Amino acid sequence: MNERPDQSPITSARSERVRKVAALAGRSARRKQGRFRIEGPQAVRSLLSHRPDLAREVFATERTAGDHPELITLARDAAVALRIVDEQIVRALVREPAGEGADDGTAAGTLVSPQGVVAVGTLPEADAAAATGALRALPGEDPATVVVLHEVRDPGNVGTLIRTADAAGADLVLLTRTSADPYSPKAVRAATGSLFHLPVLTGAEIGDVLAALAAGGLTAAATSGHASSELFDVELPPRIAWIFGNEAHGLDRATLDAAPLRVRIPLAGRAESLNVHTAATVCLFETLRRRRAGA
Amino acid sequence: MNERPDQSPITSARSERVRKVAALAGRSARRKQGRFRIEGPQAVRSLLSHRPDLAREVFATERTAGDHPELITLARDAAVALRIVDEQIVRALVREPAGEGADDGTAAGTLVSPQGVVAVGTLPEADAAAATGALRALPGEDPATVVVLHEVRDPGNVGTLIRTADAAGADLVLLTRTSADPYSPKAVRAATGSLFHLPVLTGAEIGDVLAALAAGGLTAAATSGHASSELFDVELPPRIAWIFGNEAHGLDRATLDAAPLRVRIPLAGRAESLNVHTAATVCLFETLRRRRAGA
Repeated sequence: MNERPDQSPITSARSERVRKVAALAGRSARRKQGRFRIEGPQAVRSLLSHRPDLAREVFATERTAGDHPELITLARDAAVALRIVDEQIVRALVREPAGEGADDGTAAGTLVSPQGVVAVGTLPEADAAAATGALRALPGEDPATVVVLHEVRDPGNVGTLIRTADAAGADLVLLTRTSADPYSPKAVRAATGSLFHLPVLTGAEIGDVLAALAAGGLTAAATSGHASSELFDVELPPRIAWIFGNEAHGLDRATLDAAPLRVRIPLAGRAESLNVHTAATVCLFETLRRRRAGA
Repeated sequence: MNERPDQSPITSARSERVRKVAALAGRSARRKQGRFRIEGPQAVRSLLSHRPDLAREVFATERTAGDHPELITLARDAAVALRIVDEQIVRALVREPAGEGADDGTAAGTLVSPQGVVAVGTLPEADAAAATGALRALPGEDPATVVVLHEVRDPGNVGTLIRTADAAGADLVLLTRTSADPYSPKAVRAATGSLFHLPVLTGAEIGDVLAALAAGGLTAAATSGHASSELFDVELPPRIAWIFGNEAHGLDRATLDAAPLRVRIPLAGRAESLNVHTAATVCLFETLRRRRAGA
């Protein structure tokens, strides 16, 4: 059970409570507080609709609450306090603290538009056993699409990849221990709510993930410019786990070698490569297309 | 013919010549100087290989020139001066000038890693007549894929879209007058050389583009969540022009209504939408897949 949030009104943008929410831009503050921050009507709506168990407190301007009355209903249904605060308080809640090290490359003092509503959630813990356990728990006979992000370092990429995985109908997203934190504000913003639509599990080692995939009857698949088969020609197994790697270096050799299915995405122009999100989009929507075609 | 660049060595990071290159972060400085900036070995290599006519001057650290000897050869072949400068000079060339308004959202004073090499190019002028003329000039019987970006406002998105259009084999990219400048440093970085691989034309009005598409026998296609046909089910004409719209609002009603082909991208999960680059990736690679399948 969560402890009861402080009930007193927030009147100063410089108060301790505001400062603590602003500090959630940093990974160490998130871990220390056991909290993360969610911004904007779409993401907060998804939090309250799909993961009310994570929601602790919502701060909204009068205007945003008026424009999005569903937020008030959802917060009430989830038994989560929704506080009406001044616009300047909302801005202060998302101001990157000077010199405190947002971990997502956002410059100190940067003003991000908070779109009038900010929520605080309980930070899900990195749990390697839960991550690999979730793979084993996927029903053994059903088609499944899993997305594994290994050493994807940019939080914006992580968030966008989660959004795209959701849109393409992935069942599960796993981030290995060396990937960016999906609970950084930049990742949460980029995921636009998808972080709460499907299980997103963190903290596993890639070796354990590969073992759990094999145990769960899921074929690990990776893209490589040197693969002999092209994505559009190859048969895709009904239970597939796409593994995407680092922005600059792709997947390490050992992980690539361990993936039973390696495919090349055809490049028709003169581009030398695709960025990781573009590659993932092509693979995941081709997987969806095949599934819908019953192929 | 270009005037001859200043031959004197650059010894100070605060010199006028360095300041002028740094100022190219801003659109007004680019227009005033008639120049734009290209950073990093991959983009500079593409410039020198594919558009040597645009290249004016290259600045590289000794280390980067040593790691990428092809840059020296390419610059010599293109008769472009390549100057070896200190690392601090390269950094100063790409430092966003304080208070001078980079137009791409990069904060003043931000240090972007220049990867050891920076080139200065002649800025192609926005030319509405050339843009629509290029459409009319596409050979009338051949398959063609055109990408039109209309009111895409984020330079990073514009660059990434150009990169993806290139990878998917597009013949031409057109940006309407109200899209972000593809020659801003952020867009050039995101395009990773693709800006020089295919014709990228700016300055046209959407109405004139639509008229030129029709005159060139190209079917204008757009995505819409309300379209009755799904991308994966619909027949795609061999001569197609995908029009992608604003990040927040998509395409305006009039442009959408004017597109003969409107398709919905299937969303399998709970995501409410795709971002413009994800949507474009799905459409362009599906177009490529069909073309390769001979469909």
